[in-house]
Parts: sequence; structure tokens; C-alpha cells
Amino acid sequence: MTLRVGLAGLGTVGAGVLRLLRDNAGLIEARAGQRIAVTAVSARDRGRDRGVALDGMAWFDDPVALASADVDVVVELIGGASGPAKALAEAAIAAGKPLVTANKALLAVHGAALARSAEAAGVALGFEAAVAGGLPVIKLLREGLAANRVTRVAGILNGTCNYILTVMREERREFADVLADAQALGYAEADPSFDIDGVDAAHKLAILAALAFGGPVDFAAVHVEGIRRISALDISFAEELGYRIKLLGIARETPEGVELRVHPAMVPKAALLAAVDGVFNAVFLEGDFSGPVFLQGRGAGAGPTASAVVADLIDLSRGIRVPVFGGNAAREVAITRHTGAYFVRLMVVDQPGVLADVTAVLRDCGISLESMLQHGRSPGEAVPIVLVTHETNEAAVATAMARIEALEAVLEPPAVIRIEPG
Amino acid sequence: MTLRVGLAGLGTVGAGVLRLLRDNAGLIEARAGQRIAVTAVSARDRGRDRGVALDGMAWFDDPVALASADVDVVVELIGGASGPAKALAEAAIAAGKPLVTANKALLAVHGAALARSAEAAGVALGFEAAVAGGLPVIKLLREGLAANRVTRVAGILNGTCNYILTVMREERREFADVLADAQALGYAEADPSFDIDGVDAAHKLAILAALAFGGPVDFAAVHVEGIRRISALDISFAEELGYRIKLLGIARETPEGVELRVHPAMVPKAALLAAVDGVFNAVFLEGDFSGPVFLQGRGAGAGPTASAVVADLIDLSRGIRVPVFGGNAAREVAITRHTGAYFVRLMVVDQPGVLADVTAVLRDCGISLESMLQHGRSPGEAVPIVLVTHETNEAAVATAMARIEALEAVLEPPAVIRIEPG
Repeated sequence: MTLRVGLAGLGTVGAGVLRLLRDNAGLIEARAGQRIAVTAVSARDRGRDRGVALDGMAWFDDPVALASADVDVVVELIGGASGPAKALAEAAIAAGKPLVTANKALLAVHGAALARSAEAAGVALGFEAAVAGGLPVIKLLREGLAANRVTRVAGILNGTCNYILTVMREERREFADVLADAQALGYAEADPSFDIDGVDAAHKLAILAALAFGGPVDFAAVHVEGIRRISALDISFAEELGYRIKLLGIARETPEGVELRVHPAMVPKAALLAAVDGVFNAVFLEGDFSGPVFLQGRGAGAGPTASAVVADLIDLSRGIRVPVFGGNAAREVAITRHTGAYFVRLMVVDQPGVLADVTAVLRDCGISLESMLQHGRSPGEAVPIVLVTHETNEAAVATAMARIEALEAVLEPPAVIRIEPG
Repeated sequence: MTLRVGLAGLGTVGAGVLRLLRDNAGLIEARAGQRIAVTAVSARDRGRDRGVALDGMAWFDDPVALASADVDVVVELIGGASGPAKALAEAAIAAGKPLVTANKALLAVHGAALARSAEAAGVALGFEAAVAGGLPVIKLLREGLAANRVTRVAGILNGTCNYILTVMREERREFADVLADAQALGYAEADPSFDIDGVDAAHKLAILAALAFGGPVDFAAVHVEGIRRISALDISFAEELGYRIKLLGIARETPEGVELRVHPAMVPKAALLAAVDGVFNAVFLEGDFSGPVFLQGRGAGAGPTASAVVADLIDLSRGIRVPVFGGNAAREVAITRHTGAYFVRLMVVDQPGVLADVTAVLRDCGISLESMLQHGRSPGEAVPIVLVTHETNEAAVATAMARIEALEAVLEPPAVIRIEPG
């Protein structure tokens, strides 16, 4: 017996899937109970050398045609929330073919509709590769922790951002400088905004939240901030205060509803997430019975992503079928705003009365301070002042920051970073 | 529809399963696609208050009778490698009833035979709770990383040992002292040897190795050392050298075969496993395509273990069936001896010529040194000397240690701790 796979997209990940199925063929057959073979492929350029043979595989110029080809399952590695990826996914489901995809954008934006049609058609939909490839976090949430009410998900979900923040800290360099290096090394795209503005992390968070809290969660409901505004100065203040700055995706249950946000956060150095450096991804989960669970691994790259794609194919071979979003689909999720502590850095003219003005604004907005840092004196010059607040809320902080920015002695927009337990 | 569960053993974990199925009943039914209800129970003392009602559940004095009761699945939480636990497991399989068990001793010692009969009978055998309850590591190995050749598994698999080692380090106290406290707090048993001599960790390692390398691995092949001989002095030398001492279970593929060992190890402080403190469990895995994967959580306790038991029940409800040891059963595993670097602490009389004698023995055994530490001088008194070797092998170290112990100036058996990458 053979599971015949139609594979659309032969970039890094697609070639990785072919290599994995070739290199570990014996082991995979023993574990899956049958051979898994790519028998049809589609990509843009037929002639390109991908370092792996396409012998014996039918070629399709149109990826959507794979849905009606003589295959048992369709693997979509094209990417993008719309266009051919979406057309192929819909065609595969309509043709009653199981779909395996690494496409986080597609799932974050159209996951609800795809899940409904897959479940109506009785077709499996696997997407382990869509979130943090080398970490089986979809399986962890959908199966391993299925007995738990999950109360919090916090993850480092974008390796590019984590790499940039790590290098900024270790080498005391500024964002733009490190980004340029990362682009030269191929760790960041020529147009990096998808990663560094938090969109990629938000896609993954939307998928994790749908699994954890009942979904599918609306991607538009995720509050998203990237790392462009993080400065070397903030990173060094973070170190001094006992924190690391990480771009986190957080989904948290509160009495008012579920908070969904992606933003740079101050994480205590002793927390597990603070120790995740470089291109690694990690997810921290809280289950009501399991307690805290932490998972770290490689989030991207050919090998880890191929490992996730083929794990889904082995599940299919073994006849494993799980509801797309874990069986929560009926639950309504209210989205709520954040409350918590904040790190605020101001650049001010070092002159008498500035601090009195700033603290008066905070008092008027009902924000109390846990600590304040100001190093040295430079009368008449620009100096940083760092404030750490007690627990407060987004609306109060937004109002206070607008008023503080309007003060004459305040020279630039305040840098505001939320503090997270990690 | 209801999945009717027969539950044997109503200790901490059994009561936890009842509480979990009660507290999260709605969520579990939605995810499993059917209700999961314990309809029959067996335990030693019918009258004991377990803080959870047994209303409507049939009572059996003889656990083995659960196998022929009117239930769809048998959950074995009795414990022990033989006796009623084994009898019930065999009876359930013989009766064609799926079996879910938290019993690591049973699986480590009789896993091969149970797997054979379960597969012959076409009966599912779930044991997520048998290794590190709150961490879905069985599912991770058997499913999530199923596409990978796993090359190394290293885990902190016994919370009692990790708690004792953590307190010894943090409070600079001796083993016997901390053990007594741990016993008073209920973190260690009155007879602690099962935990502190490494037997429990070895059971779990044998199960993980069977999943990773093809099994079932023979429990008797695991090299086992516990933590009784770890001294506060060794922990402080470890800190000085940049290591933490952890009781690790390690299964590693080498060209000669698979190494299987449980022993205290020096782990570099920057390694993930070095940061796992207190009662937490953690597992570090290397897959050939996934890369490194690290999983940390609560290894024991009612909540985490119940979470794992019920995850297996949800898998059964969803019709998920995976080969017991992941489909590797055909592979022969050769067991080989360890090679690596070693930390050695000697207590010697501080007199001229001791170091020359010791280094001559090492030279004769072909062992070279990376570093040597001796603090201060106390002529004629007992002083510690610490040696860190380059890579060598067990046989050479054993020979050298026997000869060194026989030297007149050496006052006690050398403390030998293997160094691991973490």
C-alpha cells in the first residue's frame, strides 16, 4: 500500500519534504504502516535544480489541478492567504482529498471557512507545519492537552524577530543595523515587514488561540505590534531591571474574554521564554490540570517544517482524524483589552520640574509607579527616564502617553513595552 | 454515546482522573466527540474519602474483574511491575479491551510482551501517563516526531531527584539532610530508593528509548546510578566549572549501538536541561530533520498525570490508534558502553608526590586531562583535587579509578560524574 501525495510548491520546504521522504523512507513506512510517496508535483519552474530528483512524479503547471489528480492527499506549500494556495485548498476539500498545509496566513485568515468545509466534507486538514515547524505544538494543544482548559498561551513565534533581538542584546547594536545584517545572511527577507511588524507571529497566534480557546478566532481581533521601535537603550534598561525583551504572541483567558496580542514584552530573565535565543521558537502553555508546559525547537527551515508536514502524512496513514480546531468550534470567544504592568522610557530635557509634570499626568490617569530610573545628570541635555508602572490598563496608558508626549520637555514619543510573566 | 471506563486504583492519580472528568466534562465531550465516564472502579478501601463522589459507579474488590465488566476501556493506576497491575493489563488485552496505564515499571519490564499481545489482539495500549505525566512526550515521540530518526534523548525524568539536587545547590546542604526534609514534605517516599537510586528514571528511559530507537528495549540493559553519592562539595565544584549536576536519563545512538544510561551528570549551565529546577521534568530530543526539541512540565502529581490519562481516553474516543512502540518493533538494538568526558573528585592527603602518582595512573590508562583544580594548601590534611578529563571511555575510567583508590594518599573512593552536553 502507498499513500500517494500531490505536492504543490517546491521551494525550500517542498524540497525538504522530498528529501525527508527519501532519506527516512524505511522508517516512515514502518511507522506509518504504508509507503508514503509523492506521485505528483506542481511548482512555478519545472527546470530548476532543487537538489532532489522528481523522477516518476507527474508534473502539473497548475497547482489546483493536483486536487483532481490521482493522489490520496494534497500538500499545499505555496503560501499566501489567497491566490493559488487558497484555490488549491478549497479544490482539494471539494474533491474529498485530505489537505496538509504549512500555510499560516491561509489558516489565520480563512481557517474558519476551511474548517467548516473540511468537516462538512469529512476531510482531514493537517497544519502542524503552519506554526513553529519543528515543535509539534498543534498536536500538543489538539491532542496532548485535550483534557485541559488552557488558560494561557505565550510564544516566541517568529525566529527572525528573536534573532534580531538576540543580536541587539548580545552585541549592543541598533535595530536597523542588525536587520541589515540579518537580511544579508538570509535570516530576514528583503521586505521584512511581514516578520518584524508582527504579522507572521499574529497569524500563528490566531491558530494557537483557535485551538486553545475554541475557534476559529478572528485574525483581525489580534492586537499587533512589531519590533521596529525597540532600541538598544531599551534593551540595556531591560537588562538592568532584570528583563529580556522578546516579541511574544499571547492569548490569555480573562473573566472578560480572551486577550490576543503580539508585541515586544519585558520578560523576567529567570522565565523560560527569556532564555530562548536566536532563531528558536518556543511556546509556553498553561493547562488547568497539566500545569505549565514549555516546548522549544526550530520554528522554520526545510528540515523542521518537512518533519511537521510528514508527521501529518503519517497521521493520515495511521487513520488519525481529529476535529480541525480540536472540537471547540461551537464556543464564542469575546476579545478583551490588556491589563498589566508597563515599562515606559521617556527622552526628556534634564531640567527641574520634568518629573513632577510626568508624575502628575500618571496620577491623573490613575497609574501608579513601581520604580523609576534616571542615571546621571546632564542639565539642559536629553536624558532617558525609565518608569515601571504597577498593574494598569491599555486605555489609561494610551491617555497618559498622549499627554506626556505633549509636554514641552519630552523630546520624542515614549517607548512603551508591556511586562509579561514569561 | 459514552466511552465507559473501568478504573483500577483510586489513589492520588485515580482521584485526579475522576475530578478531571467531572470538572472538564463539557469540554472533553466536545473534543472527544462523546462523553467519557468512569462506570466501574476498583480499589483497596471502599470506605475511604477521596474527595470525589463514586455515585453510580460499579465497585469491584478484585481489579482483574474490571476486564470482564461492562466497560469499553480499562485504566490501570495500581502500579508495580507485577501482581494485580500486570494481571489486569493481561486480562484487559485478552478480553479485547483497550488499556490505558500510568505504570512505567510494568511497561519497562513487561512492555515487549504486552505490546505483542495488544497488537496481536488489535487492542490499543495508551501510556502517556507512564512518563512525565504533564509532558506529552510519548505522543511527541510516537507521532509528532514520527518522520525523524531520533539520535538522542536526554531527560530529567525524576522530580524527587531533581528537587533534592536543586535544594542541595541552592541551600548548600548535604544529600541526607535534604532527603530527610523532602520525606517530611511528601516529595520523597519513606523508602526513597526507587527514586534516588535511579530506578524510576530508568523505567521511563527504557520506555522513551523503545519509542525512539525501536524496541522494546530491555530494561536490564540500562546502566543505572542514583544520586546518593553526590556531595555538596561536588555541587560547588560543578558551579565553579560552569556546570549543574542533574540526574539524567540518556539514550543515544552511536555507530556501535544505543547507549542507555541513568546517572548524575555535569550539564553546562547554559544548556536547557541545566535550567530545569525543582520537581519539574524535561526531555531534550534530537531528530534528524526536526532538529533539537525541548519539552518541560510537571512530571508527577494528580493533575498532570490525570491530564495524560484522559488525553489517552480522548485519543481512544477519536479512534486514534498508533502502534504501541510507534512501529519500530522489528529493529534490533545493540547496547554499547559510554564514551565521554568525566569529572573526578579525589580526597587526598596534601603531600608532595600525590598528583604525580595520580597523573601517572591516568597516563597509563590512556586518559588525558582537560583541567585540574586544587584550592589552597593544607599540608598533611585531607584536601579535594578535581580533575576534568578529555573524552575517554568507561573501561579506562573504571581501571584508573580502582588504581587511584588503592594509592595510599587517596582517602576515599573517587567521586566520578560524567559530563553531558545537556
